Amino acid sequence: MTILYECGESLPQNDELFMQRAYSQALHAYENREVPVGAVVVHAGQIIGRGYNQIEKLQDATAHAEVLCLGAAAHHHGTWRLTECTLYVTLEPCMMCLGAILQSRISRVVFGAGDSRFGALHSEAYRSQAYDAYGRFPEIIPGIYEEQCRELIQRFFREIRMQRKMEKERAAAQNESV
Amino acid sequence: MTILYECGESLPQNDELFMQRAYSQALHAYENREVPVGAVVVHAGQIIGRGYNQIEKLQDATAHAEVLCLGAAAHHHGTWRLTECTLYVTLEPCMMCLGAILQSRISRVVFGAGDSRFGALHSEAYRSQAYDAYGRFPEIIPGIYEEQCRELIQRFFREIRMQRKMEKERAAAQNESV
Repeated sequence: MTILYECGESLPQNDELFMQRAYSQALHAYENREVPVGAVVVHAGQIIGRGYNQIEKLQDATAHAEVLCLGAAAHHHGTWRLTECTLYVTLEPCMMCLGAILQSRISRVVFGAGDSRFGALHSEAYRSQAYDAYGRFPEIIPGIYEEQCRELIQRFFREIRMQRKMEKERAAAQNESV
Repeated sequence: MTILYECGESLPQNDELFMQRAYSQALHAYENREVPVGAVVVHAGQIIGRGYNQIEKLQDATAHAEVLCLGAAAHHHGTWRLTECTLYVTLEPCMMCLGAILQSRISRVVFGAGDSRFGALHSEAYRSQAYDAYGRFPEIIPGIYEEQCRELIQRFFREIRMQRKMEKERAAAQNESV
């Protein structure tokens, strides 16, 4: 997978275009057999950070696309305060990542597929808790390239299930032949 | 500050003793002029990870003691699945860190001082959200060395306020003498 745009390169302020960049990151995760979620952080029309899910590679449960991407953006930006930045992520962020978004002072979140189980942005309860603690909540734009982002995740899990089924059948066949 | 116990060294299963180790980590943060929060992860009576708040040093809003400590523990343990591990932390974890605890499958959290504003462990709402998404919530033991942990944080903010006041007074005196 070729990354067409590098950090610092200017792109027009366009949610669809930046979500495609996040999707490119998700493809990196997919190619590395990780749950395919990708993210970019944009400031003043520039991508200042990229990240994709690397839980298995790094063996770190906190290595979600958003956390890695926020770290990369802060490093590039020279400060952990990512005010006036937008996070683009292919899957609705979980509780941990919403916390990281609030800590980082990200002002806007654009996401692709919703996550009814782990997603923390559709819930009024999280919004209320965030206001109580941080006095703010980022602007949320859901559903940009929703189908494309969801399909990639579904394909990943379909392939995982198929692979496990084949491994089981192979093991069963071996046991029968012994 | 000397670290008396290294990773892998066996200690008796004792919440007070391990919280003192977390406190030693908080002192590192204090000495580095970071909000003094420290943490350790313990598995089978052994400290397998340590961390202290390094937001300013790393310029990364996600560099809370808990996140760094969970990462260190996973690296030492060889897996991101920290089941049957206890996290000791001097301050009640925030939303992001509760999310990281749930992602890491930590089974028990012992904390020192409560945090009525940012703390996510005292809230019934977070517990309910965690059960809905993850189907579990760690056992929580609050208030171990509460006074000591709280006093360190209060001392830090008192000193910060005093320093800022002195800087303002110095600037005002310079302006008057011009």
